[in-house]
Amino acid sequence: MSAPDRTHDPALRSWVASANRPDHDFPIQNLPFGAFRAASDAAPRCAVAIGDQLLDVSRIADLFTAEASAVAAALAAPGLNRAMALGHGAHAAFRAQLSALLQEDERARRPAVEAALRPLQSAQLVLPFEVRGYTDFFASIHHASNAGRLFRPDQPLLPNYRYVPVAYNGRANSVRTSGEPVVRPHGQLKPAEAGAAPRFAPSQRMDYEVELGIVVGRPTAAGEPLRPGDAWDHVFGFCLLNDWSARDIQAWEYQPLGPFLGKSFATSISPWIVTAQALLPFRTAAAARAPQDPEPLPHLRDPRDHARGAVAVQLEAAIRTAHMRQRGLPAHRLSRSNAADLYWTVAQMLAHHTSNGCALDTGDLVGSGTVSGAGDGALGSLLELSRGGAAAIDLPGGEQRRFLEDGDEVRLTGFCEAPGHRRIGFGECAAVLAPARPYGPADSGE
Amino acid sequence: MSAPDRTHDPALRSWVASANRPDHDFPIQNLPFGAFRAASDAAPRCAVAIGDQLLDVSRIADLFTAEASAVAAALAAPGLNRAMALGHGAHAAFRAQLSALLQEDERARRPAVEAALRPLQSAQLVLPFEVRGYTDFFASIHHASNAGRLFRPDQPLLPNYRYVPVAYNGRANSVRTSGEPVVRPHGQLKPAEAGAAPRFAPSQRMDYEVELGIVVGRPTAAGEPLRPGDAWDHVFGFCLLNDWSARDIQAWEYQPLGPFLGKSFATSISPWIVTAQALLPFRTAAAARAPQDPEPLPHLRDPRDHARGAVAVQLEAAIRTAHMRQRGLPAHRLSRSNAADLYWTVAQMLAHHTSNGCALDTGDLVGSGTVSGAGDGALGSLLELSRGGAAAIDLPGGEQRRFLEDGDEVRLTGFCEAPGHRRIGFGECAAVLAPARPYGPADSGE
Repeated sequence: MSAPDRTHDPALRSWVASANRPDHDFPIQNLPFGAFRAASDAAPRCAVAIGDQLLDVSRIADLFTAEASAVAAALAAPGLNRAMALGHGAHAAFRAQLSALLQEDERARRPAVEAALRPLQSAQLVLPFEVRGYTDFFASIHHASNAGRLFRPDQPLLPNYRYVPVAYNGRANSVRTSGEPVVRPHGQLKPAEAGAAPRFAPSQRMDYEVELGIVVGRPTAAGEPLRPGDAWDHVFGFCLLNDWSARDIQAWEYQPLGPFLGKSFATSISPWIVTAQALLPFRTAAAARAPQDPEPLPHLRDPRDHARGAVAVQLEAAIRTAHMRQRGLPAHRLSRSNAADLYWTVAQMLAHHTSNGCALDTGDLVGSGTVSGAGDGALGSLLELSRGGAAAIDLPGGEQRRFLEDGDEVRLTGFCEAPGHRRIGFGECAAVLAPARPYGPADSGE
Repeated sequence: MSAPDRTHDPALRSWVASANRPDHDFPIQNLPFGAFRAASDAAPRCAVAIGDQLLDVSRIADLFTAEASAVAAALAAPGLNRAMALGHGAHAAFRAQLSALLQEDERARRPAVEAALRPLQSAQLVLPFEVRGYTDFFASIHHASNAGRLFRPDQPLLPNYRYVPVAYNGRANSVRTSGEPVVRPHGQLKPAEAGAAPRFAPSQRMDYEVELGIVVGRPTAAGEPLRPGDAWDHVFGFCLLNDWSARDIQAWEYQPLGPFLGKSFATSISPWIVTAQALLPFRTAAAARAPQDPEPLPHLRDPRDHARGAVAVQLEAAIRTAHMRQRGLPAHRLSRSNAADLYWTVAQMLAHHTSNGCALDTGDLVGSGTVSGAGDGALGSLLELSRGGAAAIDLPGGEQRRFLEDGDEVRLTGFCEAPGHRRIGFGECAAVLAPARPYGPADSGE
């Protein structure tokens, strides 16, 4: 992918006035993609966010030319998959033309574009793409160490960690959009006493995980591993991802084959996909904050891209309990961490994923794993914040939390800023934890 | 699902003569579904196997009436998903009408049906359905104990095994049809010495796993767990499944999040899906051979179906090496095991899968895990047969194996037989292990 271009110019302003507010997530330098329903019974179609407006972009498809018109046409589909598959050449052309249409000095075509805008606040956003596969990595060495310390104080980090970008397959059909409540799952809960039988009940240790989601655009072929230096060609963009986790279900089930029901009940993603192109100014040195030692094996080395291997997305998690909402208290920040602190880079994760010949499909969602950093302010899950439930976290209004309670809203936000560049944001990934439902089988069984 | 009906009558004969041969896998009592290409450049469409013929069933869609005609129409699609989603009422109606069309006493419609037949041997079979999610269980207590013993001689079975039907998410896009060669994957291999660094090379411990694949038809809704007694309503059918495994890659990567690259390079399934309806006569007592102790938690109990919880599919694995092919030696049987020996039943696996609210989709593939039984003749993987590579297995022609070598063909077959019923078979799931390819990144890298 090429270097930042004219679309990244911080001086660019849009005739959509809200996009020019300095702290707005969706300035003209961003242009993230999503999908919405124009009416509750209408088929979804794709959109671009600009300021506080949603651009119903397939309605102005005739304004795009050459390569960009293929992208515009593909955006009439109910999700981004067709457009994402087209690859970066077409995406760059589309971005350049869309930017021009929205710039302050555009006159002739502005009325047509303006007619395709609608207020974001009233839009019904849906899952932005069909999730084909969902893979979750474990790329934060801080998180891996913090989580490992709870189980193995003497050896927090397993011997494979600095060689293998560890990952597991998640459940693709559990991925949903920000705003959809997450129901507390039932599962097998094992009392701590050795030999005690598990019981089947709603999870008592509900948690969130702050993650960056990588969305695959151009697919790869089976049997053709990616070089790290080519991996970014297959990244369409990024989203915020909350990998909801039931720690008690997970702790009892995960040996020897890894997490399953402790994760597969829900994964929330933000509705707007920030493109790899929009993030170009925020690529930074992979090793700046987390030097890789030992040097990765050759198939994971990428000397050509060493200076820009990481992507500096600042991530924040906040909580707002039912009590806080009643009292009008704002959400309370729990953590701030940065994707540039991940041990493994985006390119290394994708190179590893394909290194055995496994193909990547358009619409694959690849989670970074919990993004934690050094220090108590940068812990991306309650498991870490509460030291496995041992320490209570004080909230405004006098409440405390070790794990989530019913009615708690978890809100992830993310943004990028760098000197000489316009700040861009990810919007939010938020959901309320709803109480467990009465369990069908138990109610109507024997 | 109802009891065996007229379509299971062992006295039924077909005017397709080959279907009446006593040992044929596809008699008129079977009628499994698949998909094929009529020409190499044609879109695939669905088919039914009868004897040594393939029935291009959407060509005779006008012969079906009422509910069955919806199934027939859906079979014009490139895979079975649309037809599978219709549910058992429609499938039973289709099966009854199709059986009548193929019975020996059919006269009037026989010419039309005959015109839609083509020899199986010349047909290009493709993946029979679009695999949505792929979940792999660990339901054989024999396999779990045998594999566990290699790592933990004192405690082969982990404490959760008899409570939790342990499973993990596999990689759906790695599933392919029988006949496609499987390429030996590269991966990180860790020498046994503590502290030694891993190297990146082709796997040296390639293995197969004999499994039964469950194919989901009617979907479930998110948040609505299945009762075990209702689970079979969502099973379209079964296939043979070879969960190829690179034991060395898996051993180094799997802590703490389970198998990933050690499995995601390839999973082979048989091209014909034997329906849940065809298997009705072979349902047997769940606890006949593998009593569940302790009693499962309430959400996994199914008192109403206790007598028919298991499905007695006899599974065989055989090997034919390149040397054996050259010398004209037949394939050598490595194991014979039975799905009725699984600790967890099909209904329990699906009930567990949905117990946290996770939905099942049409086209989900659910593997049983390696089906091993008691005794040395019933070990469903080389890991077990060679005791983790410690013991060599003698093959005809003077060769030995601990793990697979390039050119080895692994062939899985399966069948059901029961007194008073016609034997039915699954065809085969076979693939040759091809040599590792030169590794792209290493070749063209630094």
